[in-house]
Amino acid sequence: MKKLINSREHFVNDMLKGLKFADPKIEIIADTVVVRKNKKESGVALISGGGSGHEPAHAGYVAEGMLDAAVCGEVFTSPTPDKVLEAIKHTDNGDGVLLIIKNYSGDVMNFDMAKEMAEAEGHKVESVVVRDDIAIEDAEMRRGVAGTVLVHKYAGCLSEKGHTLSQIKEKVEKMMSSLHSIGMAVHPCMVPTTGEYGFDLGEEEMEIGIGIHGEKGIYREKMESVDKIVDRLLKELYKYNDSDKLIVMINGMGGTPLSELYIVTDRVMSALDDKGVKVSKLLVGDYMTALDMQGFSITVLDHDDQVVSALNAPTESTHF
Amino acid sequence: MKKLINSREHFVNDMLKGLKFADPKIEIIADTVVVRKNKKESGVALISGGGSGHEPAHAGYVAEGMLDAAVCGEVFTSPTPDKVLEAIKHTDNGDGVLLIIKNYSGDVMNFDMAKEMAEAEGHKVESVVVRDDIAIEDAEMRRGVAGTVLVHKYAGCLSEKGHTLSQIKEKVEKMMSSLHSIGMAVHPCMVPTTGEYGFDLGEEEMEIGIGIHGEKGIYREKMESVDKIVDRLLKELYKYNDSDKLIVMINGMGGTPLSELYIVTDRVMSALDDKGVKVSKLLVGDYMTALDMQGFSITVLDHDDQVVSALNAPTESTHF
Repeated sequence: MKKLINSREHFVNDMLKGLKFADPKIEIIADTVVVRKNKKESGVALISGGGSGHEPAHAGYVAEGMLDAAVCGEVFTSPTPDKVLEAIKHTDNGDGVLLIIKNYSGDVMNFDMAKEMAEAEGHKVESVVVRDDIAIEDAEMRRGVAGTVLVHKYAGCLSEKGHTLSQIKEKVEKMMSSLHSIGMAVHPCMVPTTGEYGFDLGEEEMEIGIGIHGEKGIYREKMESVDKIVDRLLKELYKYNDSDKLIVMINGMGGTPLSELYIVTDRVMSALDDKGVKVSKLLVGDYMTALDMQGFSITVLDHDDQVVSALNAPTESTHF
Repeated sequence: MKKLINSREHFVNDMLKGLKFADPKIEIIADTVVVRKNKKESGVALISGGGSGHEPAHAGYVAEGMLDAAVCGEVFTSPTPDKVLEAIKHTDNGDGVLLIIKNYSGDVMNFDMAKEMAEAEGHKVESVVVRDDIAIEDAEMRRGVAGTVLVHKYAGCLSEKGHTLSQIKEKVEKMMSSLHSIGMAVHPCMVPTTGEYGFDLGEEEMEIGIGIHGEKGIYREKMESVDKIVDRLLKELYKYNDSDKLIVMINGMGGTPLSELYIVTDRVMSALDDKGVKVSKLLVGDYMTALDMQGFSITVLDHDDQVVSALNAPTESTHF
């Protein structure tokens, strides 16, 4: 296995130590919980997290204007409830805590358990579950993918502005009702903790509807040009969203060169323009990755003045 | 070939169209020259460029506080002199133009030719040639690699502050005298215009001393742990720099996941600390890539208050 690591066991710890050198504004508590050095003295605390391997998500978004803590599990493995509890206890300043959970059974179970434990200790905790991946038809089963990062930013801005816990939860849930993503891959990721590829793909094959944990997609198809791939993904997204004004995120899966993401961007924007859709905010980059997977996802969200203004608001995160 | 492209012929144009959607502050002239929409009205104009495939270099650095223009050639191919001349004519506001050239024979020849053509038309033009890659022993033959981005930022800040063309050239040349880089790869890049990998590597092999054009390294060795690889590269860099205070850049080659770059960062910073070297500025990310190559480079530069302050100065580029 040719990965730039020291050992499978130390992957997450070594990574977090490096992150701390790169971002002196964070610190690490309880081994794998990333928090801000300058703790927020008031305002709702925002906590996310999940398995590692999605960098810069979520630890890279622990910063003024975004998250207060990211709980980092092992690669593609949910963090345990006690770590989430540590994050709640550390960040709660009395104004309550919002947990932003991606919809995976392990994450939902462990964050929920931590919520109950924290409530028993007197903390006010609410949670929202992100389910933006339309590759899964059943709405309740949909995975949380790249759209989660837009939730971090929106909630982060609302918290900075002094909104209450219940207000933020309500606004975020409204926003998430029009948040939809779909992804594809041309190369699987190599999982450093197992030394195995997430799936095998033939020389001329691609996966449509991939998740962010190395799992294969919903359909395997013959490789096509970017224009055809983008049109195919947009067609799926149109089924869920026919707005004429959208917020759009084009997300790299970790191993995709920026040049190719821009080629994707060109087609997404041209195709939306042809359809008469106005894009009020566009984000292009590696926001929610699956290790070194090569591919991309498209996320669309209904335009909303308050959301766009929140996405444009300053943050100290260098990854947004 | 599984690349997210439409055709080999349209790679650069499609990419630049996408870049323009992602960064509305730039515009494209003469097909492949990226310039700022809000042209600088005074101050030395800074132009760089070269073959494409190094994104975000160089077009992603066309922004207030960094470059005024990036001349984009085909993938790993120098742009022609007429395009460089267009960039000079467009950006020169009367205060002169500095060309920042990576040391490759095609780039040096074509930028020099454009310089002569521009001078014949009355423009004041100077150039600096970046040769930071110590994988090549002969100092004159050394390639320009990731360190070039630090030159862009330093020169960009000096220009904003109103320094003259000769002052900037002198300061940049002084800075470049202690600018050294070395890189390695675990996977070659796939060149979309040829459909070929830059080189072949065995299952347990790595390349030390790679360039940024898909070319193989100086040594091919058995794969090792990150700690051993970093120590090996630092040992090479120490031969050229034994300062006790450094500026350090850890650069991903395009396909390297951020998690692995942080693992590299942890070792670089720990090893420098063990040696008693203080790091006054650290940069970690994809700054100068070779398409989807997996690997990294380390760049070191003598500490200098003015340089650190320039690297910390604001820029509108989202990639620095």
